[in-house]
Amino acid sequence: MNKRTLLAAIAAFALPLPALAQTAPDVAALREAALEDDLAWEITEGLTTEIGQRLAATEAEARARDWSVKKLTALGFQNVRIEPFTMPVWERGDEEAHVLGASAQKLTIAALGNSGSTGSRGVEGDVVYFASFADLQAAPAGSLKGKIAFISHAMTATQDGSQYGPSGAARRLGPSLAASKGAVATLIRSIGTDHHRNPHTGGTTWAQGVKPTAAAALSLPDAEQLQRLLKRGPVRLKLVVTSEMKGQGRSGNVIAEVPGSDPAAGIVLIACHLDSWDLGTGAIDDASGCGIVTAAAKRVADAGQPRRTIRLLWAGAEEPGVFGGAAYFAAHKSEYHALASESDFGADRIWRVEMRLPESAKAVGDRLVTALTPLGIAKGSGEPDGGADVGAVIRAGTAVVALGQSGLRYFDLHHTPDDTLDKVDPAQLRQNVAAWTTMLAIVANAPETIGPAPAPARR
Amino acid sequence: MNKRTLLAAIAAFALPLPALAQTAPDVAALREAALEDDLAWEITEGLTTEIGQRLAATEAEARARDWSVKKLTALGFQNVRIEPFTMPVWERGDEEAHVLGASAQKLTIAALGNSGSTGSRGVEGDVVYFASFADLQAAPAGSLKGKIAFISHAMTATQDGSQYGPSGAARRLGPSLAASKGAVATLIRSIGTDHHRNPHTGGTTWAQGVKPTAAAALSLPDAEQLQRLLKRGPVRLKLVVTSEMKGQGRSGNVIAEVPGSDPAAGIVLIACHLDSWDLGTGAIDDASGCGIVTAAAKRVADAGQPRRTIRLLWAGAEEPGVFGGAAYFAAHKSEYHALASESDFGADRIWRVEMRLPESAKAVGDRLVTALTPLGIAKGSGEPDGGADVGAVIRAGTAVVALGQSGLRYFDLHHTPDDTLDKVDPAQLRQNVAAWTTMLAIVANAPETIGPAPAPARR
Repeated sequence: MNKRTLLAAIAAFALPLPALAQTAPDVAALREAALEDDLAWEITEGLTTEIGQRLAATEAEARARDWSVKKLTALGFQNVRIEPFTMPVWERGDEEAHVLGASAQKLTIAALGNSGSTGSRGVEGDVVYFASFADLQAAPAGSLKGKIAFISHAMTATQDGSQYGPSGAARRLGPSLAASKGAVATLIRSIGTDHHRNPHTGGTTWAQGVKPTAAAALSLPDAEQLQRLLKRGPVRLKLVVTSEMKGQGRSGNVIAEVPGSDPAAGIVLIACHLDSWDLGTGAIDDASGCGIVTAAAKRVADAGQPRRTIRLLWAGAEEPGVFGGAAYFAAHKSEYHALASESDFGADRIWRVEMRLPESAKAVGDRLVTALTPLGIAKGSGEPDGGADVGAVIRAGTAVVALGQSGLRYFDLHHTPDDTLDKVDPAQLRQNVAAWTTMLAIVANAPETIGPAPAPARR
Repeated sequence: MNKRTLLAAIAAFALPLPALAQTAPDVAALREAALEDDLAWEITEGLTTEIGQRLAATEAEARARDWSVKKLTALGFQNVRIEPFTMPVWERGDEEAHVLGASAQKLTIAALGNSGSTGSRGVEGDVVYFASFADLQAAPAGSLKGKIAFISHAMTATQDGSQYGPSGAARRLGPSLAASKGAVATLIRSIGTDHHRNPHTGGTTWAQGVKPTAAAALSLPDAEQLQRLLKRGPVRLKLVVTSEMKGQGRSGNVIAEVPGSDPAAGIVLIACHLDSWDLGTGAIDDASGCGIVTAAAKRVADAGQPRRTIRLLWAGAEEPGVFGGAAYFAAHKSEYHALASESDFGADRIWRVEMRLPESAKAVGDRLVTALTPLGIAKGSGEPDGGADVGAVIRAGTAVVALGQSGLRYFDLHHTPDDTLDKVDPAQLRQNVAAWTTMLAIVANAPETIGPAPAPARR
């Protein structure tokens, strides 16, 4: 028995012992100890190194599930299991963009998830530039026949990541809209804020009745190059994008639990996603999220059996369309979730907490805000964004706490080849673990009823 | 006649008019005016946008020569011409690296210039890690038979760029040395200081009698990934690198002049290189260098005919082995070069001037140091590095002034796909033009004899 196995054995014994007298753990002590955490790093480093990229429904994602089950079991979690599901599989192929004519040159692109194919011979077309998604919306029907649409935006890095929504429309909806107006292919300026030669991929969706065409992102330097060329005159491009849908494939959620002493008090669901895009190794998106929530759960479990069951959801297939989150909800919607939360916005410092709790749990929220203050975290005034994988659970009326990381650097890396381990700052990662440990220790042990907290009607 | 043609015509008239009374220009006024320069940016933007990458001896480099002749002629320079030469041509092919086995994943690589080929079927081999070039040197003969060598280094960004020499040995000499010890291929940690997923290419050389093998650079995140995997156990890789030599091809130097009033006073040779590696658009390496020296020459010319002829050398084929510099020296070594200088270290702020001048020109150096001080430039104590393309001219005993840019950011970008226009800071670029204008105004008009200044014997 080597040291690692010994530690795993000790850990395995640590969890099942019920605390004889249920006392609330010393939250401040847990918080301070978590600032020395190494487990979140160990998980992030392990997943990104030993598995690397983990594109949904690939062999690599399956290896990642096996890795996760082994890891979570060794850490002493209970009811560790894979809940499989099927989903449509998309695969990247070749991808090339060539400026034709007097300024012949190659541009760097990456196909968007769910992109159609040009076929191996590619397509040629004159470029029509749209400074924003709104400009594309204004283009007349049929006006892009035979053209390649190029959609830009002016996304700015913000601490709350709030420009991802509006800027991201170019990626999520642009290719389908351009195709519906006759475009043979669509390029977008990467939905990102860096200036490296690494395009940002990400999912695009096709409206019903629209035949998927090739859709790809230019790196920001390449998007600006194309804009400079367009200022000089018409630009004709040749694109080769051979991505395609590969029928139904298999993915799965990995679930693990810290069983609570009071099953009637409901489940605290904490999530991250195990899959990544295929370009990077998914360090900030979202191995670090799995590291953070898991390290926090382990710390709270080690302090004594919590009142509420803490359930870890390492979701599969978030990136191509939240298939794991949907499968989880379908399987578990009848259970009582007292609260849900997800870490899926990197591992830079948490600066804000937002929450939606029922009136019965107002004191829980107050204790939480007080306990997070020493970590430099303050209460925000907005509606909490719980995270994609717990979105369905939250929309069904579950209470939510959102610990918001700084997004100032996130969209430099998001969905690019640059999403690698070296981008995770161990000190900031530990602050995340401390915040999550604090939150979990409070909500999992709160004597109050937490209960449902329906979201307000959308404006 | 459109506005651009009109301006070109005016410029064409501006230069040939000899200053009736030869007076030294007001250096301070020229320096301050140059801080508003737009020409260096215009050249940098034009070359990188309209041509893009300019790999030596390719069609793109030929287009760049035509572009340059047109531009330099329009700016009013005299004796604008291409001096062609032939050289061995290297071309990049496919390049892939795959970790085999339980941690199967792709690593990001770029072939080094002059790399051999694995053939399209690739090679497989176990990785042998060397923390430095010295460690590879210490490996016994034959010890790498059938293996893939992986050479690392610990390069640090420095203001003077001085770690490029020692760290760069891994790239320049490593693959040949590893091949001589039996390695089937060599990977190096990119000679760079960033952490982006963009490998740094660059030339490697093969010792006589060593058959070229595949040689490629891993991006820094990939090199660290491979190191982490090696800590866990043996790693086997499959490499596909199909770069190859394509026989002799055609390149050329572009030359332009501001004729001086006193041919006996010698030529002031100022250089940059027109070619780039193929991964980026060669903005900092070295379109900006051409912009800087040319804008400075134009400013000095516009102030009145200089005493000495200013000769611009936009060298071809610097990157694969200074073929343009060698061709220039072969053709022009019998001419009297009073001084030589090159801008080939990006366009960040110049902070240091180093020079080697004969005793007769000591006062020239003193005036230069005084005039550069307001730009934040101070005299360094080292031997000047004149630049590769004027290296042969300098080694033959020509005086040299080296205006040293900050290298703190240079090796983040050098030889990567990320060497693009957005990395050039217009304000710092203008400071470069101001420093070069100051230098040129002084040395081209100095009444003193400048004359030969042999370098001290190497230690």
